[in-house]
Amino acid sequence: MAVPRLGGALRPLSAATKRIAVSPAPRPTIASALTRRATVSTARMASSFYSGEPDGPVVKTEIPGPKAKEYIAKLDKVFDTRSLNMLADYTKSTGNYIVDPDGNTILDVYAQIASIPIGYNNPALKKIAESPEMVTAIINRPALGNFPSHDWADILETGILKVAPPGLNQVFTAMAGSDANETAYKAAFMWRRQKERGGPAVEFTEAELESSMNNQSPGASQLSILSFKTAFHGRLFGSLSTTRSKPIHKMDIPAFDWPQATFPQLKYPLEEHVEENAKAEADSLAEVEHLIKNYHVPPCAVVVEPIQSEGGDNHASPAFFRGLREITKKHDILLIVDEVQTGVGATGKFWAHEHWDLPTPPDMVTFSKKAQTAGYYFGDPSLRPNKPYRQFNTWMGDPARALLFRGIIDEIQRLGLVEHTAKVGDYLFGKLEALAKKYPGQFENLRGKGQGTFIAFDNPNRDEFLKKAKKFGINIGGSGASAVRLRPMLIFEKQHADLLLAAMEKIVSS
Amino acid sequence: MAVPRLGGALRPLSAATKRIAVSPAPRPTIASALTRRATVSTARMASSFYSGEPDGPVVKTEIPGPKAKEYIAKLDKVFDTRSLNMLADYTKSTGNYIVDPDGNTILDVYAQIASIPIGYNNPALKKIAESPEMVTAIINRPALGNFPSHDWADILETGILKVAPPGLNQVFTAMAGSDANETAYKAAFMWRRQKERGGPAVEFTEAELESSMNNQSPGASQLSILSFKTAFHGRLFGSLSTTRSKPIHKMDIPAFDWPQATFPQLKYPLEEHVEENAKAEADSLAEVEHLIKNYHVPPCAVVVEPIQSEGGDNHASPAFFRGLREITKKHDILLIVDEVQTGVGATGKFWAHEHWDLPTPPDMVTFSKKAQTAGYYFGDPSLRPNKPYRQFNTWMGDPARALLFRGIIDEIQRLGLVEHTAKVGDYLFGKLEALAKKYPGQFENLRGKGQGTFIAFDNPNRDEFLKKAKKFGINIGGSGASAVRLRPMLIFEKQHADLLLAAMEKIVSS
Repeated sequence: MAVPRLGGALRPLSAATKRIAVSPAPRPTIASALTRRATVSTARMASSFYSGEPDGPVVKTEIPGPKAKEYIAKLDKVFDTRSLNMLADYTKSTGNYIVDPDGNTILDVYAQIASIPIGYNNPALKKIAESPEMVTAIINRPALGNFPSHDWADILETGILKVAPPGLNQVFTAMAGSDANETAYKAAFMWRRQKERGGPAVEFTEAELESSMNNQSPGASQLSILSFKTAFHGRLFGSLSTTRSKPIHKMDIPAFDWPQATFPQLKYPLEEHVEENAKAEADSLAEVEHLIKNYHVPPCAVVVEPIQSEGGDNHASPAFFRGLREITKKHDILLIVDEVQTGVGATGKFWAHEHWDLPTPPDMVTFSKKAQTAGYYFGDPSLRPNKPYRQFNTWMGDPARALLFRGIIDEIQRLGLVEHTAKVGDYLFGKLEALAKKYPGQFENLRGKGQGTFIAFDNPNRDEFLKKAKKFGINIGGSGASAVRLRPMLIFEKQHADLLLAAMEKIVSS
Repeated sequence: MAVPRLGGALRPLSAATKRIAVSPAPRPTIASALTRRATVSTARMASSFYSGEPDGPVVKTEIPGPKAKEYIAKLDKVFDTRSLNMLADYTKSTGNYIVDPDGNTILDVYAQIASIPIGYNNPALKKIAESPEMVTAIINRPALGNFPSHDWADILETGILKVAPPGLNQVFTAMAGSDANETAYKAAFMWRRQKERGGPAVEFTEAELESSMNNQSPGASQLSILSFKTAFHGRLFGSLSTTRSKPIHKMDIPAFDWPQATFPQLKYPLEEHVEENAKAEADSLAEVEHLIKNYHVPPCAVVVEPIQSEGGDNHASPAFFRGLREITKKHDILLIVDEVQTGVGATGKFWAHEHWDLPTPPDMVTFSKKAQTAGYYFGDPSLRPNKPYRQFNTWMGDPARALLFRGIIDEIQRLGLVEHTAKVGDYLFGKLEALAKKYPGQFENLRGKGQGTFIAFDNPNRDEFLKKAKKFGINIGGSGASAVRLRPMLIFEKQHADLLLAAMEKIVSS
């Protein structure tokens, strides 16, 4: 396969960076090397990470074009294509660019619903995918709870756990965001009932054993997970009961009678609505506390996204989240932070909740998407249920995807992509502020300042905005009712931001 | 890497088979070639499928041995190991044999809880894992509902859909058995409510839209899925509500108030209990119909395993399942057949429900495990919900695993492994019948006759039986309260059966 098609060789350090790296300063720590790297990469105009990446988008046909249409017609016979956004040819996609069968080359700031971390056909990941370790993992998939491989601890420690949020040193691995959240919920229910029962040594009663098999209490607990309005935590039955994004996600599906609190609805720009926003957050926290104390199906945990993503990119302040930690501690219930979409660098921290400066860590943090694998982190040993086989399933994750995440982590750290994203995000946000002034009403409620590239704004004709973007060579996503959400990869640079900004200006002025 | 470590080259046809293949008969159809192949492979004593496979088990240390213990201690710090059965070194495992870090080489008739189809380090699958197509799939994981690749239809048609059960020509792909079942349940709820609403063109009411967001009816439907006692359908919240295997699977987890019918409890040997068993099945069907008509949360679907697997290898007759199809049709509710454990060949048919000779196909068939990917098949277009994004999630499956399943299907068909397994199963069952006579009480309720190698029996000291098996070089699993379940791979041959039988005789006579 030709080198350019696969993204070309990764440039570990540009010439400029190399000069810095061999300076007489003491051997840099990872952190300082990363910061330096980030400075350099945002200052250059050519792509720093992909020698084979196109210079910009190329739109050759309408999208979908004639070839894509043929493929879609064929696919629709066997697979629902009504939610299809764009048919892709991944063998030709590179770095920040997604390519379709008609040769349209599109700057992708949606990135598979925020799940591609470091570019299409990333050469470092290609090497990992070709490694004997990966081949073994693919063809010998274990039942991890029963028959883990001899190197599973090592894979975890050098990968998933290497980036564990501070204070959380254990993991339960899963397949995707939904089951990551649901297994975390299960851990919460078991933890709570174990406390109520009097500790891990207390055996289940006959009444519990019998009623559990009939889906009745006391065996099936009458407890709940508290979530927020406009939250999204997945679409299986338990996670969907905590999801409150849109009726189309929930309609007709049976749900648990679990409580929801209002998520603070902040007004923008933040600096002009300080008091109002502080009151919205205080009201929300009061509602949470009220529900914890009074809801007829008592919550044993609160689940929250650092930034409500599917629900419309709704932010709250670090103080709000510290308040949430305080309330959950006070009432001895768990705080589960759902970092499925916010995790792995895009907010300018590896985990978005690192922005909060919490006095004690969350009890569980769930992850998926950019991690390319999934699960929940925890620290408190009492979150391991008191008996084996209580938290269990056949595969319990996927070592192949855990190896991939390890490779992603290595690249993120080697290239300083979290710090890089923080800087590019600042640049992009500043330029968007200027655009918002220039085109009043088109970039409303601009949000995500200081949150890396995790930026969004509202547009009155959002759906049309997203459609038009394709014509200008940009693949961009929406969320909530009217938000345009930016979810570029961690290798998104200043020059990509400039292309994106120019396209957006064309969209709103055309 | 040395060839024997990776299982050696696959022998496509033995010398004997080659002679048959070049006989003057007309060029064989796949089916006839497969039957012939199966005859030959069961008649030979050396392994037909793996030139590098060991001649038999080698037990060098206690299990876990000293090296495995070190790995387990390290793993336990970060990952719950209390359900650990045996630590494995998959780089050294081959064909039917799982190898551990202490060099113990164990004949594996449990196969990662029935999920390894055609052997460890299968050379054909290794080629697929190393292919550029797989590499692309690993590193460019798409959001399949939004951005499918140009070859996704082709991958489905030459793979997952090539083995679709008769009458079912569409698929919704998933990650594992639990979410395969849950997405099938979701399709059932949407299908039923759409009917009640008056068809796909009828819009949701304001009351539905609002109440769905509050987890209340009418938006959140008050409908149920009917399952059977001792069934297992997964461990997430919806699937767990239909799982009725053991309290340890369900304890403390909130559950939906859904109905359960008694699964017929057949007595063995079948031929000695014909009337009794027929009555048990008739009673069960009557109970199903009663629950459909009267349960206060009306079922919109019945979910059933062809053989209840985790619940103890409980069988029912084809007539029972035809009755179930008849009742569900009569009351216009769906029949979901959960083939997560029974599917992909082990019962001597590709899908176990092919044994039933149904007048009309099941409405949905779910799969996972040996398929190494997951999802549900369906045929009726009205099972596609009336709007996009109702049945949706970020990844919606995994093309990498779909490619692997395609490779598994190709090998199964090329080598005739379904027919082969039917024959080996017959051989094994016959020998087990003899053992059961020789050791009364040790192989009770022997079941699975004519069901390939999907065989089980009860043993009064089941847990000890399973532990002892390791000492004799066999990895074997249990299910239900007292069943020993055999779940060998599809490359399990007569000589492996002989090794297994000899070991089992030692276990019960030691």
